Amino acid sequence: MTRRGLHEDRGEPETIEMNSKEQMTALVLHGVGDLRLEKVDIPQPGPGQVQIAVKKVGICMSDVHYYKHGRIGDFVVDCPMTMGHESSGVVAAVGEGVDHLQVGDRVAIEPGIPCRRCAKCKGGRYNLCSKMKFCATPPVHGSMSTYFVHDADFCFKLPSHVSLEEAALLEPLAVAVHAVQRGRVTAGDKVIVSGAGPIGLVSLLVAKANGASAVVVTDIDDRRLAKAKELGAWGVANVMGLDAQAAAKAANAAFGEDFDCSEGQAQAVIECSGTEIGARTAIHAADSGGTVVLVGMGKPEFTLPILEAEIREVDIRGVFRYVNAYPVAVNLLAGGQLNVKPLITHRFHINDAVKAFDTVGGGQDVIKVLIDCEL
Amino acid sequence: MTRRGLHEDRGEPETIEMNSKEQMTALVLHGVGDLRLEKVDIPQPGPGQVQIAVKKVGICMSDVHYYKHGRIGDFVVDCPMTMGHESSGVVAAVGEGVDHLQVGDRVAIEPGIPCRRCAKCKGGRYNLCSKMKFCATPPVHGSMSTYFVHDADFCFKLPSHVSLEEAALLEPLAVAVHAVQRGRVTAGDKVIVSGAGPIGLVSLLVAKANGASAVVVTDIDDRRLAKAKELGAWGVANVMGLDAQAAAKAANAAFGEDFDCSEGQAQAVIECSGTEIGARTAIHAADSGGTVVLVGMGKPEFTLPILEAEIREVDIRGVFRYVNAYPVAVNLLAGGQLNVKPLITHRFHINDAVKAFDTVGGGQDVIKVLIDCEL
Amino acid sequence: MTRRGLHEDRGEPETIEMNSKEQMTALVLHGVGDLRLEKVDIPQPGPGQVQIAVKKVGICMSDVHYYKHGRIGDFVVDCPMTMGHESSGVVAAVGEGVDHLQVGDRVAIEPGIPCRRCAKCKGGRYNLCSKMKFCATPPVHGSMSTYFVHDADFCFKLPSHVSLEEAALLEPLAVAVHAVQRGRVTAGDKVIVSGAGPIGLVSLLVAKANGASAVVVTDIDDRRLAKAKELGAWGVANVMGLDAQAAAKAANAAFGEDFDCSEGQAQAVIECSGTEIGARTAIHAADSGGTVVLVGMGKPEFTLPILEAEIREVDIRGVFRYVNAYPVAVNLLAGGQLNVKPLITHRFHINDAVKAFDTVGGGQDVIKVLIDCEL
Amino acid sequence: MTRRGLHEDRGEPETIEMNSKEQMTALVLHGVGDLRLEKVDIPQPGPGQVQIAVKKVGICMSDVHYYKHGRIGDFVVDCPMTMGHESSGVVAAVGEGVDHLQVGDRVAIEPGIPCRRCAKCKGGRYNLCSKMKFCATPPVHGSMSTYFVHDADFCFKLPSHVSLEEAALLEPLAVAVHAVQRGRVTAGDKVIVSGAGPIGLVSLLVAKANGASAVVVTDIDDRRLAKAKELGAWGVANVMGLDAQAAAKAANAAFGEDFDCSEGQAQAVIECSGTEIGARTAIHAADSGGTVVLVGMGKPEFTLPILEAEIREVDIRGVFRYVNAYPVAVNLLAGGQLNVKPLITHRFHINDAVKAFDTVGGGQDVIKVLIDCEL
Repeated sequence: MTRRGLHEDRGEPETIEMNSKEQMTALVLHGVGDLRLEKVDIPQPGPGQVQIAVKKVGICMSDVHYYKHGRIGDFVVDCPMTMGHESSGVVAAVGEGVDHLQVGDRVAIEPGIPCRRCAKCKGGRYNLCSKMKFCATPPVHGSMSTYFVHDADFCFKLPSHVSLEEAALLEPLAVAVHAVQRGRVTAGDKVIVSGAGPIGLVSLLVAKANGASAVVVTDIDDRRLAKAKELGAWGVANVMGLDAQAAAKAANAAFGEDFDCSEGQAQAVIECSGTEIGARTAIHAADSGGTVVLVGMGKPEFTLPILEAEIREVDIRGVFRYVNAYPVAVNLLAGGQLNVKPLITHRFHINDAVKAFDTVGGGQDVIKVLIDCEL
Repeated sequence: MTRRGLHEDRGEPETIEMNSKEQMTALVLHGVGDLRLEKVDIPQPGPGQVQIAVKKVGICMSDVHYYKHGRIGDFVVDCPMTMGHESSGVVAAVGEGVDHLQVGDRVAIEPGIPCRRCAKCKGGRYNLCSKMKFCATPPVHGSMSTYFVHDADFCFKLPSHVSLEEAALLEPLAVAVHAVQRGRVTAGDKVIVSGAGPIGLVSLLVAKANGASAVVVTDIDDRRLAKAKELGAWGVANVMGLDAQAAAKAANAAFGEDFDCSEGQAQAVIECSGTEIGARTAIHAADSGGTVVLVGMGKPEFTLPILEAEIREVDIRGVFRYVNAYPVAVNLLAGGQLNVKPLITHRFHINDAVKAFDTVGGGQDVIKVLIDCEL
Repeated sequence: MTRRGLHEDRGEPETIEMNSKEQMTALVLHGVGDLRLEKVDIPQPGPGQVQIAVKKVGICMSDVHYYKHGRIGDFVVDCPMTMGHESSGVVAAVGEGVDHLQVGDRVAIEPGIPCRRCAKCKGGRYNLCSKMKFCATPPVHGSMSTYFVHDADFCFKLPSHVSLEEAALLEPLAVAVHAVQRGRVTAGDKVIVSGAGPIGLVSLLVAKANGASAVVVTDIDDRRLAKAKELGAWGVANVMGLDAQAAAKAANAAFGEDFDCSEGQAQAVIECSGTEIGARTAIHAADSGGTVVLVGMGKPEFTLPILEAEIREVDIRGVFRYVNAYPVAVNLLAGGQLNVKPLITHRFHINDAVKAFDTVGGGQDVIKVLIDCEL
Repeated sequence: MTRRGLHEDRGEPETIEMNSKEQMTALVLHGVGDLRLEKVDIPQPGPGQVQIAVKKVGICMSDVHYYKHGRIGDFVVDCPMTMGHESSGVVAAVGEGVDHLQVGDRVAIEPGIPCRRCAKCKGGRYNLCSKMKFCATPPVHGSMSTYFVHDADFCFKLPSHVSLEEAALLEPLAVAVHAVQRGRVTAGDKVIVSGAGPIGLVSLLVAKANGASAVVVTDIDDRRLAKAKELGAWGVANVMGLDAQAAAKAANAAFGEDFDCSEGQAQAVIECSGTEIGARTAIHAADSGGTVVLVGMGKPEFTLPILEAEIREVDIRGVFRYVNAYPVAVNLLAGGQLNVKPLITHRFHINDAVKAFDTVGGGQDVIKVLIDCEL
């Protein structure tokens, strides 16, 4: 098998590659709808890296998108690519110069490695690094395989009471941590989360963990909203059929009367639906001087009530992945500040991975599907 | 009785004063150790003001300080002054132009009225207004009386499930809200609170409400530390007899191993003891790039390890009262994010106010003493 | 003449109104195209106010818009309204309690008075106060009259070397100060200003005063661009006929090679054209992690490349007027950091005010038209 | 000669070392007062590195301190160390993977290489990295040698109109850029710089470039103050013999009357004297809510009026070197926003380096001494 990919670029010496005749299983995407379980060489850690025996991997909508469409925007799967970027595992080998991890440590894997040298990396916004190598974004291999090699500083040791399953959810949790930070959510705030899918639900949890006094979740599906309520939403609003202004009004009404002393609407709206109507609603729903965070990604262009945003100084801030969010997310689990377990609705062994991929997006009771990579 | 004070300056028309022959009870400080329960005229609300039937008033250490010493720094009690600034009550009359409050509304009273016109007020930092009129800071009368008149926008309507007793604790809670904001405490942080007195304990509660993953409280008294643990401290450290560096080490050690993935020490240290050793310890205990917040006030000058703060860029930030913190504090109670009830340890009727004042500071089991002003 | 307006609401006692039989000249808008020079009563200062003998008043595009269309959005001129909000003058009388101004002081007038009591006002963002009374925004009278009464804290004393003509330009300057602050422009930045009208030109000046290392100005008119160059633009780009991506490329290309060490595109784009293509270009032109500030106001809705803004985390921030910007703008003139005199292209006496209004927008050589109100 | 140092750690392969028999001149410190001009091997660039033909190197007070005392705090010169960390030069060779620099490019060298992997590095504060390797801080060699090898991303290409002499001053300029940023200096501010030595003078230049409307410089030497005035200080104050409060008053008085509209004292005080009295004065001199930046380093402990800082919320912020400041400093020179040439008072060839070191600190007319390393 010929594998074009970027494992090589991460500093695995040729000599070690040659020595490691042993092989492992990987879930490899060859093209639209063509997912294969294959045997590939086990990668070895170079300096500053660790080799991880992968345990649990969540399936993200982006994985499914590559599977179904072979591309996301400019990122095209034009050579075989291992899937997966929401992973946890156990350190199996430690490269030279790694001193904070040991064989046997349970870790969560932050899936992107930036260049560490550009102005964005040095300025603390490495998620904007144009040379980012991100797992399962073509042509970089993902981590849905028996072993995975990664830079050690992007592997985060888990507290003893955090399970490997929870750890696999740190990736969507990191998205929410970043989104909530970009939304400047702080204690006492009223927050609206638009869209009750997996990212919306973790955003709800993280907004509350950040001190939001009340989070209202909106969606067009009552079962999803019931889940949001179960996970701690102060209120919910089904905005099916409402125009943006009516939806904004409904969302703010769901805060009720208890917070009237803090005049005004929601300080932040975390838009996770990726829809134009969601973004339009968010602008109307945010308080003057508040913030709309666009997390969900949809079509390239939106028509928005910009004048409204302008005269009320509602900031519109997109989020791209996350930066320095894994340590925060790990600590939120370590401190017992939120519970991601109820989000795990389905589990499959890697041998049933294709079935797992077909399950995601298949029904409203599916939130997060985990793959067990242990052989 | 001749009363020199600042009620007049707040816009109560003379004509109304003359009409209001009715009198009320007030706890008035005449000088060192000279607290008297007196009959004074009931004040009437001017435009933009409300008259409040006062219900619960907490006693603050500053009240006790004026009682025992007749002064705090440059503020000297040289004419009779009504005590009290941690108050809640029920709106009894509404002045012209007030539209967000009605007779019967239960409110918490933010005790300081700034000038609203200086650069500090217009810039969002009215706590630094040099013309601030603050309850029970000479020569401004406090609110420990049957009725009290106040600018309506500094009275915050309570949610139905928040009691008037809890509302009296909004004042120390606001101190903590401001301190924690100045400490830039955010989700995932490790925070040290130095000093387990009333302000330290509310700072613990507020830091957790702001998303701190773990709060370690230090003190030199085990009973206070036990209370901190009961209120949710992740760990505690008795720093009796330790030098600053040893105390800093002990405090950070109390975080344990679960947060090792977030390398380094506490991101913020909230110093509430008002001692030099507390401030010295705080500088050593804060992580590089972290923040020391000085809440407790002590002697005018401290000798501090400034070079240490400098080379590790540990910011030292004082707090003076609070600004825009009451709405946040009310929302924290409204959202059920923290519970201040365990802090109330003693209750007295206003008729026993002198006894109440003698109780404060009298023992380690005293946290917050409330006065019931209802006649 | 019957005048419905809000002078009365600002606390001028009826008694004084009755005493002041003297009258003054005001330029009053009665409806579309119906501007009249009229005699009205001279207003007297209440507590906290000053009466100003108005000297110079700039004409803003919004004035012209009311003149030509009788409305801007929801603000409708349905009763006679005095025009003007870019004014300077000399203090003629001082109300009770004003201590920082004296008769004879030369001042600039910040034209909006907020409520001072809402969360926005107390939080330092009074420009978002929903009860703002803003000069020459219906139904509030403007300052294009012989005398004008205003809250003293919104009148800023001028340094001796700053002329009353320059002071009239403090209003557009304040817009630019606020825009540049919202754009987080700081030393070393590359900044693009889109649109070389009056606001674009003052934004250029203010961006440079804030430390921007290079400002590129774009427009579709070469004469305006020549003016921008004359005022200190590092480069200019005529974007006539270019699509958004091409225009963005052209603008960034105009920075040349000297700033290559600071990789990437402009950190901030100040969009002053109010056009959709301008906003679209701004998103493409801003560096990843940068900021687009929308200053110009156009149609209610824009279709924007939101996905592009999202994946590169380009913040979109509107500005509405300004907040706490006058003191900064005055200091910029006081410190000699910028020169607004070249912006004044036309001068008229108030007796020729209608002619002045017809001049604004009449040609590309018109930047700022001043009215002399001195009789 | 045996050289223990950290060049090796930066990834220069042994094989290349062995091939490069050629030698170069370096100024090496062997112990207190023992500076020697020696022949050492020419280092070769590894991947991501460049080899620079060093041209100009400034002498810093820290260099002189090592020369005279053999240590600064815990940093002890216990093996031969090449001096110098304020350098510019021309790229002589380019390592693998470097694409933004070419042989012949003129560059300034940022002298510290952080680990790029810790939370501080990834969070945008690499100056706080505990694994920082900083030129001429034991045991890391400095750049006062014919050639120097450095990570390419810490070498900044110069605009054509910026000379190599100016580039050598980018290091102190970067200190000032970081200090002024930490001081949150922005347009319109009044700023006090305490101490008119080299760092004080560049802080003056940078504060003005950041938009400060007026900078007052204090010192105890009139010749230094005259230099500050010459470089653009709005005012100066000789604080010789004054206590902290009097000195603070004198400094603020020097702003004069032009900025009275912006009420209050200096928004920021940049303390560069490194003295306790300087820090004490800074706290009194800063406006309420303002910032004191401690740049100068002196004795480990200061006794400070902390209560004053606390009740007026004056933040005390130290600075340690700089972070992401070189690109800003380069752009300030590129944009012609400040002129550092007047700071260069003495020039020596590297052959006269010992004489140069004896000159620094030798008199009040010495500001910056440059070494020419070209052979």
